[in-house]
Amino acid sequence: MQKNRLEAFSDGVLAIIITIMVLELKVPRGADWSALAALAPIFSGYVLSFLYIGIYWNNHHHLIQSTRQVSAAILWTNLHLLFWLSLLPFATAWVGQNYLAPVPLAIYGVVLLMAALAYFMLQQAIVIQQGPGSVLAAALGADWKGKLSPLAYVAAIPIGFVLPWLAAGLYFGVALLWVVPDRRIERTLRQVGE
Amino acid sequence: MQKNRLEAFSDGVLAIIITIMVLELKVPRGADWSALAALAPIFSGYVLSFLYIGIYWNNHHHLIQSTRQVSAAILWTNLHLLFWLSLLPFATAWVGQNYLAPVPLAIYGVVLLMAALAYFMLQQAIVIQQGPGSVLAAALGADWKGKLSPLAYVAAIPIGFVLPWLAAGLYFGVALLWVVPDRRIERTLRQVGE
Amino acid sequence: MQKNRLEAFSDGVLAIIITIMVLELKVPRGADWSALAALAPIFSGYVLSFLYIGIYWNNHHHLIQSTRQVSAAILWTNLHLLFWLSLLPFATAWVGQNYLAPVPLAIYGVVLLMAALAYFMLQQAIVIQQGPGSVLAAALGADWKGKLSPLAYVAAIPIGFVLPWLAAGLYFGVALLWVVPDRRIERTLRQVGE
Amino acid sequence: MQKNRLEAFSDGVLAIIITIMVLELKVPRGADWSALAALAPIFSGYVLSFLYIGIYWNNHHHLIQSTRQVSAAILWTNLHLLFWLSLLPFATAWVGQNYLAPVPLAIYGVVLLMAALAYFMLQQAIVIQQGPGSVLAAALGADWKGKLSPLAYVAAIPIGFVLPWLAAGLYFGVALLWVVPDRRIERTLRQVGE
Repeated sequence: MQKNRLEAFSDGVLAIIITIMVLELKVPRGADWSALAALAPIFSGYVLSFLYIGIYWNNHHHLIQSTRQVSAAILWTNLHLLFWLSLLPFATAWVGQNYLAPVPLAIYGVVLLMAALAYFMLQQAIVIQQGPGSVLAAALGADWKGKLSPLAYVAAIPIGFVLPWLAAGLYFGVALLWVVPDRRIERTLRQVGE
Repeated sequence: MQKNRLEAFSDGVLAIIITIMVLELKVPRGADWSALAALAPIFSGYVLSFLYIGIYWNNHHHLIQSTRQVSAAILWTNLHLLFWLSLLPFATAWVGQNYLAPVPLAIYGVVLLMAALAYFMLQQAIVIQQGPGSVLAAALGADWKGKLSPLAYVAAIPIGFVLPWLAAGLYFGVALLWVVPDRRIERTLRQVGE
Repeated sequence: MQKNRLEAFSDGVLAIIITIMVLELKVPRGADWSALAALAPIFSGYVLSFLYIGIYWNNHHHLIQSTRQVSAAILWTNLHLLFWLSLLPFATAWVGQNYLAPVPLAIYGVVLLMAALAYFMLQQAIVIQQGPGSVLAAALGADWKGKLSPLAYVAAIPIGFVLPWLAAGLYFGVALLWVVPDRRIERTLRQVGE
Repeated sequence: MQKNRLEAFSDGVLAIIITIMVLELKVPRGADWSALAALAPIFSGYVLSFLYIGIYWNNHHHLIQSTRQVSAAILWTNLHLLFWLSLLPFATAWVGQNYLAPVPLAIYGVVLLMAALAYFMLQQAIVIQQGPGSVLAAALGADWKGKLSPLAYVAAIPIGFVLPWLAAGLYFGVALLWVVPDRRIERTLRQVGE
């Protein structure tokens, strides 16, 4: 019962974050193709951030599915994750309006990094609450994607000051890595169910 | 259980999309009838897009109802559909502020077209997951509305550069076609239930 | 099952409508009491519209509670109601920025009137779907509040062009009439349950 | 059943409030560190208000969990609470744009105070509905946090006109007091369940 409401609130916040980002796609003054083309940087930022929120929603969905009860630690680490994700529309808009400028790009990376760490903390809170023999711990295994992503962000932040294109590429690359959905938890849950 | 959360998230995103479009209906400076009349193009665009989101919500509701389990393909094709629908407020605002200008009208058509294709992909993902004897495949039958709509958009996009009124008429026409709700799925589900 | 999603979507739209109205309460430039006092008209409009959306949510809640199955007519009359309510933030903002100007006041009344008619249509769709011996029809009884409210709006719209204060007073008066929650349905449902 | 919808609507409103506050974090014109640093006051206001909405969501979650049935008084006191919380984005934005100006700071305190009183009223409505032997009344006990918080706001409002830093510190302090989640209700519910 408790769990349902955690999901409902998180779904609500994620649905709003993913949707208000589109408000940054301001209607251009002109009505020709060049006016549209000028939106390309903001649009590509929107695509990337939409992808990230979609990935987080997807993985969050699997994460909470493996949870039975919601502890205070889970509630607060979940809110902490939502806090960092709520800053993504701001970071997206700043990057979009200053295409490949290093400082906005770095801030985008910091928001992604903090969200990744917050997700890790939420994961840990669930593992701790499940105690030894945690289904989630087994499902995560080595969790190489979860470990590689923050490392990629840590690398991309300074890289952006020298080679902004490479930093942007890293942010896209990590997203693509995750679009392959997190089947580990699904698979283990299914095995446990059998 | 999984399914509930897919519905909750989609409901949230669609509810926000349908509602933020009204933010484009900017409060006019004047307080007389002429100030109100000047909003007519934006208002009619709002009506059309509200109708489209309503239709998608309605059909999405029937579509997911016919689903038992949510596969990774369903999750991602659903997000893909929400992505294109999330661009409707932008396209609506651009058309509204440049009444019958061909480029915004074409972009409106492209967004509708991509959303229709995304809906088709979601439909296919569900049919595939249900396997042979799929309830949904039986319910859809020839699916002539689902096939006619993208064709109408494909036609309307170039038409808009010559006869913008006709293109706008086509977008309204397809919407009206769908306001007659998708009883096929409902009917077949009922037959299966009997 | 169907019903849950209708409620979830309606809750989402109403929650967004009630909340985005506050975005019209634009942050003033100054930081003193006079800057705050200048917001009084917009604030009082916000209070009134918040009340109206709250009343609609409340009554909608009771209405849908009395429903077992959701027909196509219920889905579409519900969307129709949400459409008119979605225009309330616009009407509220226009009235707020043009305090007691007759045209915005009339439009505010028109939106309330159309929402009241849409609510009536939704009510009828449910009664029809329930068939003879409808629980809702019994619960509504003479439904004098439901009949008085649109009459009050119809009266207030022209009155506003002569005595704007009286029109505003009527809009507030009808709201207060409804704050007394709709116990009729609750009571009849309880009797039926006994 | 009734309760679920109260939760869903409240979750929706709280999710929107917590997310639209970030829209005040306007994208700066520049793309360097100084542009970012200029956002520090608005950002710290955002953090504080995010924390407050998170706390209210958390405690609301526990409060409604202890409720079986929803009375009219609970519906309306809940809406009343949401009304005051809906003003937090406005108050946050005004404080953020006028860092430590006494009037915005006082208004921020008034909104927190009114929300605290509204929460108290909701709590009372639940206790009254539960009647003698109320689980919630037992769970709340002396409720010193619930009593201390409004007192702190009452003190902070006038203090802000002399020592704005101290007032801001009090608002932060009360938030931190509540981040320790309200285990009282959880504990008592568990004892009752045993």
